[in-house]
Amino acid sequence: MTEHARTPVTVIGLGSMGTALAGAFVAAGHPTTVWNRTAARAAPLVAKGAVHAAAIEDAIAASPLVIACLTTYDDTVAALAPAGPALRGRALVTLNSGSPAGAREMAAWAGGHGARFLDGAVKDVPPAVGKPGTLLYYAGDKAVFDEHRTTLEVLGGDTVHLGDEPDLAALYEMAVGGTLLPALVGFFQGAAAVQARGLDASTLVRFTVKWFEMIGSVLPVFAREIDSGDYTKPMSTVALFLAGAAHDAELGAEANIDVSWQAPFHELLQRAVDAGHADHSIAALTEVLKKPAPAS
Amino acid sequence: MTEHARTPVTVIGLGSMGTALAGAFVAAGHPTTVWNRTAARAAPLVAKGAVHAAAIEDAIAASPLVIACLTTYDDTVAALAPAGPALRGRALVTLNSGSPAGAREMAAWAGGHGARFLDGAVKDVPPAVGKPGTLLYYAGDKAVFDEHRTTLEVLGGDTVHLGDEPDLAALYEMAVGGTLLPALVGFFQGAAAVQARGLDASTLVRFTVKWFEMIGSVLPVFAREIDSGDYTKPMSTVALFLAGAAHDAELGAEANIDVSWQAPFHELLQRAVDAGHADHSIAALTEVLKKPAPAS
Ligand SMILES: NC(=O)c1ccc[n+]([C@@H]2O[C@H](COP(=O)([O-])OP(=O)(O)OC[C@H]3O[C@@H](n4cnc5c(N)ncnc54)[C@H](OP(=O)(O)O)[C@@H]3O)[C@@H](O)[C@H]2O)c1
Ligand SMILES: NC(=O)c1ccc[n+]([C@@H]2O[C@H](COP(=O)([O-])OP(=O)(O)OC[C@H]3O[C@@H](n4cnc5c(N)ncnc54)[C@H](OP(=O)(O)O)[C@@H]3O)[C@@H](O)[C@H]2O)c1
Repeated sequence: MTEHARTPVTVIGLGSMGTALAGAFVAAGHPTTVWNRTAARAAPLVAKGAVHAAAIEDAIAASPLVIACLTTYDDTVAALAPAGPALRGRALVTLNSGSPAGAREMAAWAGGHGARFLDGAVKDVPPAVGKPGTLLYYAGDKAVFDEHRTTLEVLGGDTVHLGDEPDLAALYEMAVGGTLLPALVGFFQGAAAVQARGLDASTLVRFTVKWFEMIGSVLPVFAREIDSGDYTKPMSTVALFLAGAAHDAELGAEANIDVSWQAPFHELLQRAVDAGHADHSIAALTEVLKKPAPAS
Repeated sequence: MTEHARTPVTVIGLGSMGTALAGAFVAAGHPTTVWNRTAARAAPLVAKGAVHAAAIEDAIAASPLVIACLTTYDDTVAALAPAGPALRGRALVTLNSGSPAGAREMAAWAGGHGARFLDGAVKDVPPAVGKPGTLLYYAGDKAVFDEHRTTLEVLGGDTVHLGDEPDLAALYEMAVGGTLLPALVGFFQGAAAVQARGLDASTLVRFTVKWFEMIGSVLPVFAREIDSGDYTKPMSTVALFLAGAAHDAELGAEANIDVSWQAPFHELLQRAVDAGHADHSIAALTEVLKKPAPAS
């Protein structure tokens, strides 16, 4: 392999995630320029070898590849707007959460300033940035992805381009990420339940990790059912879940936990039963979600 | 190692799970007697070598170890009641879902008939029964667990006794299992979203499996925060989740999906913010769940 000079990179936004991204580039030997609204947050990175640019236009001018990791697309546009002309010809990559519509607007804004654009998502926590198994996916200008692929792989070894439409990463981000808060609240409820019994929440962890592995192992089956629309060979039925749901209120009463957040799940199950899915796979809930919610 | 004759086992209830349990015992060479309300469901097991008992009292009399896997505790009591006297001196193990209160009632009922009692849970799907990594946990009479441990391990290599209180498995079952439906609905919503874009739900699976691994990897941190009550060194804040929540409605509108099931999550986040947790770890939601739901 020929030894190439590493691509200079600019990271805009030094929150938990932006700091991890910039840190990974510094560690990998990329000349790294950083900018943050609150300039003081740049200090630890500067101590490691990053260059701090006080003005955002200088930060953008410093590198062909500019990665922005702010809270939202609106924040990103707000921060970049004063330096719009500096973006011409740059590769701009946004790595914040947001909706597909937000990604499309962001892409249009970037294109309007002559930037080549990729939108992506870090599918992991900041400490995982830079590790071989860490997943990031991108969508948008494939030429930008191909050109900077090696540099982007510094952030995580499992780096994927989903397609040319710039909102695909945001779509997958929401489609994949939509399990996080519900799963966590389920875990927090379990933690409150064992604590009410004088046991540590930590005793749950090993079992819950295994449980997530189990859930992961059945997803291919559910996905096939959803893709085929055939829910008639169920592994677990809607009726079985509805029977289990009846116990949630009991646990709430026993452990003095607010279980009211579960009500919509019970309603979804009931709507599935009403639509004739009682003996169908639980994956038939997908069909219920495709119908508008009943007026309440 | 001395070669012992394998313990005779009776399995009551031949639904998806009971059939898998009985099949594992037959495969492991245990003399296996089966009973089911709908007798016809016993045929495939009889073909493999199980003995079908037409009368439940004969099924119970056939083995020192009786495993019941019906839908609920109430169903179990209903099925066993006519054969109550046959239970004296037997080890009875229930493996259905249910609440801790239900497990306590079941234990009292079993004790009243002179049975030694364990309640347990299979933390996996029927096809995983009998595999080395499959998790089952039990609670109740430790002497029964110790005596039959090798036999119970036929059902899954990761076999755990949680404690002598007979409702602990039901407590953990709900505390661990409470993530399942929310996580699945999150996945089904994602499936509906990519389908609305003309993409296959199956394209989500690999990303979601990795995402669950990510969630599992952060649970030890959240559990420590919950056990210590210190949420002030957050990896991901309540405010960050609330910012993300704003996009859910957009996705719903774009992909024509019913996202109304998420409303309680947004309310929990708002209640956490109102309680001063905006800049605390998302695990602080546990404290919100310990408070009664606001009247609505
Ligand atoms: N943390 C995670 O676990 C994680 C994981 C995956 C994805 N993400 C995504 O990554 C993105 C950033 O998350 P984070 O955890 O780094 O958030 P964070 O720690 O709250 O940092 C937010 C960053 O955005 C900047 N910012 C916000 N509004 C701005 C504005 N109007 N103008 C200029 N700068 C602005 C902040 O600057 P100041 O320092 O001046 O406030 C800060 O640098 C989010 O979209 C998040 O969803 C985070
Ligand atoms: N399937 C899974 O993925 C899974 C995973 C973990 C735990 N579990 C738990 O395992 C238990 C059984 O689940 P399953 O999937 O095997 O359910 P299933 O396929 O619906 O079978 C239910 C069984 O219970 C019997 N039954 C129900 N009510 C009865 C009554 N009143 N009297 C006599 N028999 C009665 C049924 O008998 P008939 O055949 O006569 O109707 C059948 O054998 C449930 O508590 C479930 O939550 C299941």
